[in-house]
Amino acid sequence: MRAMAVIGTGLIGTSVALAASRQGVVVYLSDRNPSAARTAAALGAGLTQTPAERVDLAVLAVPPSQVGTVLTEVQKRELAVSYTDVASVKAGPEQVALAQAPDPSRYIGGHPLAGREQSGPLAARAELFRDRPWALTPSPMTSNATFNRALELVALCGAVPVVTQSQAHDDAVALTSHVPHLLASLMAARLRDAPAEMSRLAGNGLRDVTRIAGGDSRLWGDILQSNAGAVVGVVKRVHEDLTRLVAALDQLAERGGEDRDDGLRTMMELLDRGVAGLAEIPGRRVGGGGRAVRVTVRDRPGELPRLLGVVADFGVVPEDATVDADEAGALTVDFTVPPGAADRMVAELRADGWEAVRPNGIGPYFREMARKEDGIPSEAVSK
Amino acid sequence: MRAMAVIGTGLIGTSVALAASRQGVVVYLSDRNPSAARTAAALGAGLTQTPAERVDLAVLAVPPSQVGTVLTEVQKRELAVSYTDVASVKAGPEQVALAQAPDPSRYIGGHPLAGREQSGPLAARAELFRDRPWALTPSPMTSNATFNRALELVALCGAVPVVTQSQAHDDAVALTSHVPHLLASLMAARLRDAPAEMSRLAGNGLRDVTRIAGGDSRLWGDILQSNAGAVVGVVKRVHEDLTRLVAALDQLAERGGEDRDDGLRTMMELLDRGVAGLAEIPGRRVGGGGRAVRVTVRDRPGELPRLLGVVADFGVVPEDATVDADEAGALTVDFTVPPGAADRMVAELRADGWEAVRPNGIGPYFREMARKEDGIPSEAVSK
Repeated sequence: MRAMAVIGTGLIGTSVALAASRQGVVVYLSDRNPSAARTAAALGAGLTQTPAERVDLAVLAVPPSQVGTVLTEVQKRELAVSYTDVASVKAGPEQVALAQAPDPSRYIGGHPLAGREQSGPLAARAELFRDRPWALTPSPMTSNATFNRALELVALCGAVPVVTQSQAHDDAVALTSHVPHLLASLMAARLRDAPAEMSRLAGNGLRDVTRIAGGDSRLWGDILQSNAGAVVGVVKRVHEDLTRLVAALDQLAERGGEDRDDGLRTMMELLDRGVAGLAEIPGRRVGGGGRAVRVTVRDRPGELPRLLGVVADFGVVPEDATVDADEAGALTVDFTVPPGAADRMVAELRADGWEAVRPNGIGPYFREMARKEDGIPSEAVSK
Repeated sequence: MRAMAVIGTGLIGTSVALAASRQGVVVYLSDRNPSAARTAAALGAGLTQTPAERVDLAVLAVPPSQVGTVLTEVQKRELAVSYTDVASVKAGPEQVALAQAPDPSRYIGGHPLAGREQSGPLAARAELFRDRPWALTPSPMTSNATFNRALELVALCGAVPVVTQSQAHDDAVALTSHVPHLLASLMAARLRDAPAEMSRLAGNGLRDVTRIAGGDSRLWGDILQSNAGAVVGVVKRVHEDLTRLVAALDQLAERGGEDRDDGLRTMMELLDRGVAGLAEIPGRRVGGGGRAVRVTVRDRPGELPRLLGVVADFGVVPEDATVDADEAGALTVDFTVPPGAADRMVAELRADGWEAVRPNGIGPYFREMARKEDGIPSEAVSK
């Protein structure tokens, strides 16, 4: 890839341009707000002039509802050989491309799953996409040449391509991004009628749950209306659960009520389903392949912290451990260890004088144990 | 404070014990699970033996529904001079204390707003409470001596005491902690029927929104049922908003429907209320006192990154800046700067050869600008 055009120099467009520029690609920048394009250029993301000849790839970094229109316009003036976009919704833009764009074979939908808590070109980073998933949604018309150009772009940005179909993408992000945004907004909206004590008693849990609600509401309105069909399907099921939860909490709030047990059962069932659902999110530490390592520790101050220090070098954290104490004054510590690390860790612990073994066949047990310890509330107290 | 008892050696109890032990307090540990107490002791949190005489303070680190019972039991055997707890709900335990405990004047409710994503004694940290709020809820009966003991504990842990009334506390945490937990659970519960693409397309937004749903469901069931009255009040208003949102999304999902504008208006209103609600959470960067600093930059590569590097030393990030470009080839960068830093920053920029000024009377304008840039989605694209 020699030359590229980026249309829309916000956070994502400018970050793409920075990444490509650093790899030696000549990048032409434009934005309907000239200051944004000039800012991106001043950051070293590329040039604000119009390319003299067709570039290899045009990247449309505009809201979902504008992708189809902008694609049609730039294809008509033959800006590039191939075209892609970075919008969060893919089925709608694809439909417009197939129906209206001069050459749909030169277009492939794209969506990097990356962002920051800030927006605009000043917040851009060449490294924004490093190791992040980047969805590509070829249509039946997309040519291999255009597909490969998009893969090249993803590689230039250091991201991981995930090839999927546009509607499958939209169904997935309704669940992983759009409905989470709406729930964050619903929660944040409640803070406006907060009691005076609220601001002093806000913890990190609240910050995490509401963080994404701070997004540009115009952009999010565009995203959500562009994916309303998939979003409403998920939101309706949340609404059903919430309706049941309101009834359960009413039962629990009634002091001495006979229905308290029913209410508690309904609420616990929801909480447990939530815990189970989290296992579907990748990147949680304890995976299917954990190995068990058991270490016996003399029960005297300093030994256990020393052991935790040694195992930390192997990527093992307290989350991955359970402890059992016997009557004789010894502690048995069971760790769940990344598969590649278990034998090395046992060898090093033994060389260091620890009593360490690898019990057989109890991997799943320890995974379950570890999972129960996993991910807990800001206000946890001991059971 | 010379001696303390900690009852319940989970994450919070053990962290309190570690903090107090490091300050030279003799800490006696107990837990209904002896292994947990032994583990805490092995970490250096204290001793597992029974104190020979009354300690100065007993800290009850047990779930909310057990505080009253445990308090009554330990006061009967005169374990301590004063008593406090660390449970997330305060009105219920206070009622039981006033009704049943042998000496309610020796009890004060407490709740440190701190936690980790892991639970159990192994995850404990002496530093867990450093600079975090710690609610104290004296009842009308609480003696000054007991109040001061609790303040001493908060100081030992490096936390910031927030004195409030038990029901005001519970109303506030319903909003800041308990309802956020339920919404995180509702979202996480939906992940179980996720499409196959979901796991590859999960971003950090989803992780943040759902993180606290991973908490111990038994403990959270206890917390939520202990505060069901305050929680259901907030949840009902969320339910009303969600009901309106479902109708709006249905209008938006109907292709070419006449009610799309209505649907969009309802959804935008919710998103905007969410953005506005976030301003109620303390600790967001741009506060009321920001000062404006304007810098003019020659529009050539390298200048803007160099400027951002200089202002970063004054705690200014791109989030606090807007850029305007003129026809003549110059960029005007407006920063919102912490009040104490504005004059120093201008002086240093000028000494360094930059054209920097402090325009008058535009603080609020810049705050508004900065707020619009603030907190954005994982999948943001340029407008």
